[in-house]
Amino acid sequence: MRKIRAKQDSLLLEFSRAEKRGVYKAIYERRDVRGHFLPKAVADDLLEKLLDAAHHAGSVGFMQPWSFIVIRSDEVKRQVKHLFDQANEAAAKVYQGERRELYSRLKLEGILEAPVNLCVACDPTRHGPHVLGRHTIRETDVYSTCCAIQNFWLAARAEGVGVGWVSILKPAELREVLHIPEHVIPVAYLCVGYVREFLPRPELESVGWLSRLPLNDLIFHEQWGRRNADKS
Amino acid sequence: MRKIRAKQDSLLLEFSRAEKRGVYKAIYERRDVRGHFLPKAVADDLLEKLLDAAHHAGSVGFMQPWSFIVIRSDEVKRQVKHLFDQANEAAAKVYQGERRELYSRLKLEGILEAPVNLCVACDPTRHGPHVLGRHTIRETDVYSTCCAIQNFWLAARAEGVGVGWVSILKPAELREVLHIPEHVIPVAYLCVGYVREFLPRPELESVGWLSRLPLNDLIFHEQWGRRNADKS
Repeated sequence: MRKIRAKQDSLLLEFSRAEKRGVYKAIYERRDVRGHFLPKAVADDLLEKLLDAAHHAGSVGFMQPWSFIVIRSDEVKRQVKHLFDQANEAAAKVYQGERRELYSRLKLEGILEAPVNLCVACDPTRHGPHVLGRHTIRETDVYSTCCAIQNFWLAARAEGVGVGWVSILKPAELREVLHIPEHVIPVAYLCVGYVREFLPRPELESVGWLSRLPLNDLIFHEQWGRRNADKS
Repeated sequence: MRKIRAKQDSLLLEFSRAEKRGVYKAIYERRDVRGHFLPKAVADDLLEKLLDAAHHAGSVGFMQPWSFIVIRSDEVKRQVKHLFDQANEAAAKVYQGERRELYSRLKLEGILEAPVNLCVACDPTRHGPHVLGRHTIRETDVYSTCCAIQNFWLAARAEGVGVGWVSILKPAELREVLHIPEHVIPVAYLCVGYVREFLPRPELESVGWLSRLPLNDLIFHEQWGRRNADKS
């Protein structure tokens, strides 16, 4: 009897062919969107659906350390855009010549164009001080938050919604604009909205900034640096 | 002409109903698997498919900072299991009474049972020293690596393969066992394999370790701490 109940209570193992295709399509066709946002509004219930997908990432000790700040106000966006502009000006200076020129031509954010901005933050004190599984690697709370962000990104792609991660911001300045407490980590600042298109390849790859690394160069066996051929 | 080409070159916006369902199903039915691994082998080509899914996560400045160490050797697994046992013994000590008892009953890893173990590491020096977009938040390389891990986890779920993240390990010790260079960060140690079942809910939720937080408690508007109702 117990066995039968257990069986009923567990989830079906199999995905249909189309369901599987959906997962890989979201993974391969997800893009970091900067320049293709449409002004079309993102409905509250769709946004909530995407946030719920984020909320169902795994987390160390089930601590669910994430919080989401939804930004729709032009005034707040303008303040964040100003922070980006300053930080980006400093960032551009490390490049010279052609590289500098290419850098300056890249559009790296869509803060003002995206109807929704979203700050995903991690509160390391949630359910603390002892979090199951976080004794040896304190940063696992942030790792969990990143998994939640990827859920959001993939679910958004499935809904035709683009997401762009703006990483050129100083956390201390972002905390100030968004009134985030000192102990909370603003992990990601995302631009979110419907898009005109999803590019066939990542933009930094298309423009020749860097190439896609061959997967096999990234795989080792049994220990760092050991290639498959070394096994024999 | 140019417009037509651009259109052909971009990806279709729409997911079919079944494809969308697949994405949400992977997100909601992904589990941290510790106790339900089957000895059934994971084929090399399936593993490569999952690693390729990981490799197609976005990364700061397209740096693709991840590397994957695939572990199938019982000897290496035993060494890692030993590290876990030591770290877990120390971790258990912070809990008292009922909590301690519950903790000690939990199975927190499947290192020896899972046919494949996988260490996902981040090399912060790849394509360095200047990585586009990483000037203000150095940790964005690790954030990208976590997004790759989530891709792996979701694709695995779609294939009926379970993944369990072992976080109770000391990075320095894991580096030693896996010969990982000092500057490389072992972000995740994963147990990977086919499973008997995927539990209907996360185990730490079912056993009452912690509850699922209501999503609405995690959403703020325009700034930290401001609830929707405050908008009026």
